[in-house]
Amino acid sequence: MLERSFSNILGCDKNYEESRIVVFGAPFDGTVSYRPGARFASSAIRGESYSIETYSPYQDKDLEDINVFDAGDLELPFGNTAKVIDRIEEFALGILRDGKIPFMIGGEHLVTLGAVRAAAKKYSDLHIIHFDAHSDLRDEYLGETLSHATVIRRCWDLVGDGRIFQFGIRSGSREEINWGKEHVFTCFFNFSRLDDIVDYLRDRPVYLTVDLDVLDTSVFPGTGTPEAGGVSFNELLDAVRKVSCLNIVALDMTELAPPLDPTGASTSLACKLLREILLYVYK
Amino acid sequence: MLERSFSNILGCDKNYEESRIVVFGAPFDGTVSYRPGARFASSAIRGESYSIETYSPYQDKDLEDINVFDAGDLELPFGNTAKVIDRIEEFALGILRDGKIPFMIGGEHLVTLGAVRAAAKKYSDLHIIHFDAHSDLRDEYLGETLSHATVIRRCWDLVGDGRIFQFGIRSGSREEINWGKEHVFTCFFNFSRLDDIVDYLRDRPVYLTVDLDVLDTSVFPGTGTPEAGGVSFNELLDAVRKVSCLNIVALDMTELAPPLDPTGASTSLACKLLREILLYVYK
Amino acid sequence: MLERSFSNILGCDKNYEESRIVVFGAPFDGTVSYRPGARFASSAIRGESYSIETYSPYQDKDLEDINVFDAGDLELPFGNTAKVIDRIEEFALGILRDGKIPFMIGGEHLVTLGAVRAAAKKYSDLHIIHFDAHSDLRDEYLGETLSHATVIRRCWDLVGDGRIFQFGIRSGSREEINWGKEHVFTCFFNFSRLDDIVDYLRDRPVYLTVDLDVLDTSVFPGTGTPEAGGVSFNELLDAVRKVSCLNIVALDMTELAPPLDPTGASTSLACKLLREILLYVYK
Amino acid sequence: MLERSFSNILGCDKNYEESRIVVFGAPFDGTVSYRPGARFASSAIRGESYSIETYSPYQDKDLEDINVFDAGDLELPFGNTAKVIDRIEEFALGILRDGKIPFMIGGEHLVTLGAVRAAAKKYSDLHIIHFDAHSDLRDEYLGETLSHATVIRRCWDLVGDGRIFQFGIRSGSREEINWGKEHVFTCFFNFSRLDDIVDYLRDRPVYLTVDLDVLDTSVFPGTGTPEAGGVSFNELLDAVRKVSCLNIVALDMTELAPPLDPTGASTSLACKLLREILLYVYK
Amino acid sequence: MLERSFSNILGCDKNYEESRIVVFGAPFDGTVSYRPGARFASSAIRGESYSIETYSPYQDKDLEDINVFDAGDLELPFGNTAKVIDRIEEFALGILRDGKIPFMIGGEHLVTLGAVRAAAKKYSDLHIIHFDAHSDLRDEYLGETLSHATVIRRCWDLVGDGRIFQFGIRSGSREEINWGKEHVFTCFFNFSRLDDIVDYLRDRPVYLTVDLDVLDTSVFPGTGTPEAGGVSFNELLDAVRKVSCLNIVALDMTELAPPLDPTGASTSLACKLLREILLYVYK
Amino acid sequence: MLERSFSNILGCDKNYEESRIVVFGAPFDGTVSYRPGARFASSAIRGESYSIETYSPYQDKDLEDINVFDAGDLELPFGNTAKVIDRIEEFALGILRDGKIPFMIGGEHLVTLGAVRAAAKKYSDLHIIHFDAHSDLRDEYLGETLSHATVIRRCWDLVGDGRIFQFGIRSGSREEINWGKEHVFTCFFNFSRLDDIVDYLRDRPVYLTVDLDVLDTSVFPGTGTPEAGGVSFNELLDAVRKVSCLNIVALDMTELAPPLDPTGASTSLACKLLREILLYVYK
Repeated sequence: MLERSFSNILGCDKNYEESRIVVFGAPFDGTVSYRPGARFASSAIRGESYSIETYSPYQDKDLEDINVFDAGDLELPFGNTAKVIDRIEEFALGILRDGKIPFMIGGEHLVTLGAVRAAAKKYSDLHIIHFDAHSDLRDEYLGETLSHATVIRRCWDLVGDGRIFQFGIRSGSREEINWGKEHVFTCFFNFSRLDDIVDYLRDRPVYLTVDLDVLDTSVFPGTGTPEAGGVSFNELLDAVRKVSCLNIVALDMTELAPPLDPTGASTSLACKLLREILLYVYK
Repeated sequence: MLERSFSNILGCDKNYEESRIVVFGAPFDGTVSYRPGARFASSAIRGESYSIETYSPYQDKDLEDINVFDAGDLELPFGNTAKVIDRIEEFALGILRDGKIPFMIGGEHLVTLGAVRAAAKKYSDLHIIHFDAHSDLRDEYLGETLSHATVIRRCWDLVGDGRIFQFGIRSGSREEINWGKEHVFTCFFNFSRLDDIVDYLRDRPVYLTVDLDVLDTSVFPGTGTPEAGGVSFNELLDAVRKVSCLNIVALDMTELAPPLDPTGASTSLACKLLREILLYVYK
Repeated sequence: MLERSFSNILGCDKNYEESRIVVFGAPFDGTVSYRPGARFASSAIRGESYSIETYSPYQDKDLEDINVFDAGDLELPFGNTAKVIDRIEEFALGILRDGKIPFMIGGEHLVTLGAVRAAAKKYSDLHIIHFDAHSDLRDEYLGETLSHATVIRRCWDLVGDGRIFQFGIRSGSREEINWGKEHVFTCFFNFSRLDDIVDYLRDRPVYLTVDLDVLDTSVFPGTGTPEAGGVSFNELLDAVRKVSCLNIVALDMTELAPPLDPTGASTSLACKLLREILLYVYK
Repeated sequence: MLERSFSNILGCDKNYEESRIVVFGAPFDGTVSYRPGARFASSAIRGESYSIETYSPYQDKDLEDINVFDAGDLELPFGNTAKVIDRIEEFALGILRDGKIPFMIGGEHLVTLGAVRAAAKKYSDLHIIHFDAHSDLRDEYLGETLSHATVIRRCWDLVGDGRIFQFGIRSGSREEINWGKEHVFTCFFNFSRLDDIVDYLRDRPVYLTVDLDVLDTSVFPGTGTPEAGGVSFNELLDAVRKVSCLNIVALDMTELAPPLDPTGASTSLACKLLREILLYVYK
Repeated sequence: MLERSFSNILGCDKNYEESRIVVFGAPFDGTVSYRPGARFASSAIRGESYSIETYSPYQDKDLEDINVFDAGDLELPFGNTAKVIDRIEEFALGILRDGKIPFMIGGEHLVTLGAVRAAAKKYSDLHIIHFDAHSDLRDEYLGETLSHATVIRRCWDLVGDGRIFQFGIRSGSREEINWGKEHVFTCFFNFSRLDDIVDYLRDRPVYLTVDLDVLDTSVFPGTGTPEAGGVSFNELLDAVRKVSCLNIVALDMTELAPPLDPTGASTSLACKLLREILLYVYK
Repeated sequence: MLERSFSNILGCDKNYEESRIVVFGAPFDGTVSYRPGARFASSAIRGESYSIETYSPYQDKDLEDINVFDAGDLELPFGNTAKVIDRIEEFALGILRDGKIPFMIGGEHLVTLGAVRAAAKKYSDLHIIHFDAHSDLRDEYLGETLSHATVIRRCWDLVGDGRIFQFGIRSGSREEINWGKEHVFTCFFNFSRLDDIVDYLRDRPVYLTVDLDVLDTSVFPGTGTPEAGGVSFNELLDAVRKVSCLNIVALDMTELAPPLDPTGASTSLACKLLREILLYVYK
């Protein structure tokens, strides 16, 4: 008779076995040297889920009709970065081995490395689509190789040349931008070259990582390193739609920082985008 | 010799008798289940009026040249929703019976019901133009029939099929969206169909209700249920201009929530929009 | 293998059957005419529980050793005050009938009425101890009889003269203060008369209601109607300790408003006080 | 039939002629070199008045029974400090000449100079009681003689040695503190010497200036230059009570800075203190 | 061995002698009658510089390759507007006389007057390009001739008809807009006429003043008088690029108000824009 | 002629050689699992120094008369906790070896470990006085041995039984509190036993670590884990005065978190306390 009601992300209340996508939080922002806060993203999204409709008028589909499991948040040891990445890798690998798609909610962008490691173990020819304002291709940052500013470089260590496709990039050091020209595909400022890349990638296994600061700061101020001059919500939605026809084997969404979102609008946008991505990617 | 200076909305200091439009506040947000705050909108707009010019470079017109009366705020009993609606209806009806146009500043969107009731009493063939992110067509919400999420459905109870024209809608439950397809006209996401509707409505009495969350969250974060992917300020201004050639008999602007507007930019926008609407609608 | 971890209040994870105290949230602030926000209190306390120790150095006791069940939050219909009170009454009565102590986390102070109704049904000689800055003895407020400003008067309707004992009161209208002199016991500003009352009440069934604004605004700014000149945390803790030797049959803690608590210090204090009350009252 | 309701300070709605005390705002903070905001104090107090009772349980008196007029806010030219002081002097002098007591709500502390000038014109033997954290006795600050940091020195220019009595002082430069030892009476940190001074001043005309930062920062964080180690609300209330038996001919309350008061607790305290001072001083 | 590291603006650490551009802060907002805060802009930009890359992917250039000196902030006397302007003029004139370009970071827009006075002394045929939401052409404001609302009119006093070119204007009084039609060139709302003006001005000495509120409030909410309907970041960047081919002899960027920028996004944008302008203008 | 003015902490502008105390910042909060922000403390204190007098009316002494050097902030690698501690140790050891007293401004409390390691290398019989709300005696926290919750336990690893003296403790796990009873001296809640300890420690080398959350949350809300029921500012000042007669060889002040200090009052208090400690400890 007495029952507890807890908030799942977007009301995703299916059980693990029947679900095709498994959402989980990676509440870590320990390498953020400037403005932390992304550690609270998954928790804020759960709280905000209350106010988001499960139905999408963009796709005329409803979350209630698809099987998604919310696995909750990982407990991650602040202060020990290597262990954090290991923990995420292990968790994501379990989901992949069960034939499901892990959808990780960061956390700072470095958490992507853990999930990419897991995906690269299962898929030897893994490709990565990367939406971001920052190229994240430094080899080290403040003396550290594991950092939010090096994460895509660390992914490149795993997958190598010609496998990483960046869009929306509008910030980086001269060195990393120049390095990137030889090792990854970069579409600066927008998604203008996305159609070509989608054509090229057809059927190959793809990891999709969305750093939300790819959005313009007007649309998404609630993040640690906002960069003016980004894409609009509708442009990002359109890009996600295009990518969703590919073989997405794992994905993530990172860098919402709720303490930097006093109006709640960025958290609300993240919830809505999460709904749309789930409905697009689910097959 | 000693005199007090109090803030009228946008400096509207004409007296009631000479005025053609009567502005009043309906500071109520009692059915808002998530983030309240719209109760403070009319008070914030009054305070902010100090920093807004009365002259519009968009129209080359000045508020000082038109006759608008600021009637202040209604005193509304929190906790008794039905009485709140009755109170608003009665007040708006008095204005209408004096041959004037009531312009209500919400408050949550439910306050619209009181003013629509009044307008429908005077104009048996009332039509409604509705700018909003949310369709507000539920039959009930959390067991209640009087709610911000049901307000346009309650208006439909009064005016019936074919009389309600929605624009900018980008959120709703599957049920209400489907119900809407049979009973109201809905233009999703933008104003693309507005010209046709303006043509169709020529000469008919129109109630215009502007839920400010029709704007994109970047432009207008200061509202209780922000929805990404909305229209720009210039698009809304253009839509208001088009509608203003119709026979507007009553109107409102709702859902500014000042406590969710830490920069003041949303309140400032609401003031400016109010000025433009007054100058467009006044004849 | 895959498991979800959700936040119970203060980690209270015992099951209902074995528990002696049942904590539940009543997230309602619908009659608050000025600054709402108490609706988010139970949710904020759950989120904050993460950072609170279960051990009390004040009592050398640990929450892990006592049986308390967190029943989650009631779903309450905003806009329909009477139904909200009924819902709370029904829920609290179920707990009382199972021989347990309901401990309600408001919400605005009006929620107390529902739980007092339930307690008065079970205990015909119910007494009420009331810690508050405001006497809450108005007969009506803005035309309504059900209001945060009338709640103790409504309780008096149930229990009658000589049964209500107020402490810390430092605000009220002249009318309600004068009415109170004839019908309730009031200790203004502090707890100076508490020992006498505790002596007098020994063995009688007591409902304890703690409106957190009894605390000084320096200690507890995060509430809708802060009143300077209140008691310190240690004074309140001492008062709770004294009262805990009585026969407490039901209790509540109300008026934490997290949106008015930008530093988090008020929410943190509420968590700590909750722990101490649970450890004091539990037998 | 249609009426506007505007907020007077604490509901003071008597007319000028019948009133003994005239409250007015001096919304200026133009010499504040660090954190401005006091310009919004009188406006915030008017808005907050809504939530403050007119009845005082401390004195068992009610504002409704005394005659106080709210004259609104002066319009003061930012950027021209000398003119601001002149404007205030002129306004306060008008009130004094009509046989009434001016009660000015700052604004930064410099506004006091205008009102003291007016009072010194009428009362050649004017004495000043000064509650503050800062001695404000510099001869100049950043090269300017008119500054919030020099205001009491400028008052001394008018009244001379032995006429100024400071309490609660806990900050100043070595030079101004040393200067003060020879020219004014200073009670550091608290009100311990107040009784003696009240005895001494009996019957002499007194200007009372309350810089609210005399309060501890815990009690009153909402001010531009908070100083830890101040007095409590009850201590300040007690000091005001003692002073009120003197011949107060004019008074002020300054340095509430609403933009630095995110919880609203400081504004609320200022309202309550204003009520108590009015009730104490009114005869 | 022990060294201090302080933040220069954007890491500009060249010495004065070798530098072609000299950046300095003018932390003054003393005539702002409504929402101050611009006084903190240069300090906030220094603090934020930490998180901004020195490399521009827009121009493929790096700040490390150009010679810019950060001269720190002027110490300006609040409360004495005329002296503030004099101080700025003197400082800017020193830089100009050394054959360098002064780049002033406001502060409110009035600080522009000091630098324009200096530039007009050196260049008798000075022209002014003015990006702003407000025309700032009033002859006086609240009785004062030196005000953020009169600054361009005061510049006109110096340079005369046909020398001032405004873009993005969307707010003003009827009087100042009408006055402007006869004395300055105004392009309302956007930069549509910029190419023509750039053609016309080729080789003439130009002062560029960028009031950041020319940007839309969505992009730049952190300013004292936000005006909806402004230009995007990319549009402003493009305009700056076009103007940079002219003979810019001095320039400024004003009206960032960090206290009104709770997310930090406006401060971040100002830093990025500063980088781009420096790289465009430096030759 | 052109000069830059940068903010030293409290204006401490002596050079290293002549100084007896060396202040430096350790901007690290990487093991904070809940609310970070202490990384910004030293930077905020520098910025706030502008508004703090150098003269103390408590001691009638002035910072201008004593020789203190501000060495700026260490650059610390987020994400690599062990390296952070090493870096701090090395820096503090340099200062100690030069015969000076290091005064570190945290950062989270873990930074204390680095400085204590340095002091223990120089002073084999080092004693530690520890003011804090939390005992910080866990052996590990979330699986890590280096954490803000284990820092004093790690110090005990270095100095052993009978060398650590805690005051103000009011929070901890049952295990750590019980462990503490056998290995350290703990005075719960206040400083009641401080005189005895000061007597006992006379002449022995003492490291003083002040975790600012020892203060009551009313006085100091701006910290990551506020604990109600703490000491007042005057009590802490008095305790510091008593301790200052000992042989303090190194010291620190930690856990100010400026992002959690919206009013600025906590940062202001930290500045003032820093001034008083410097003036007390300097000999």
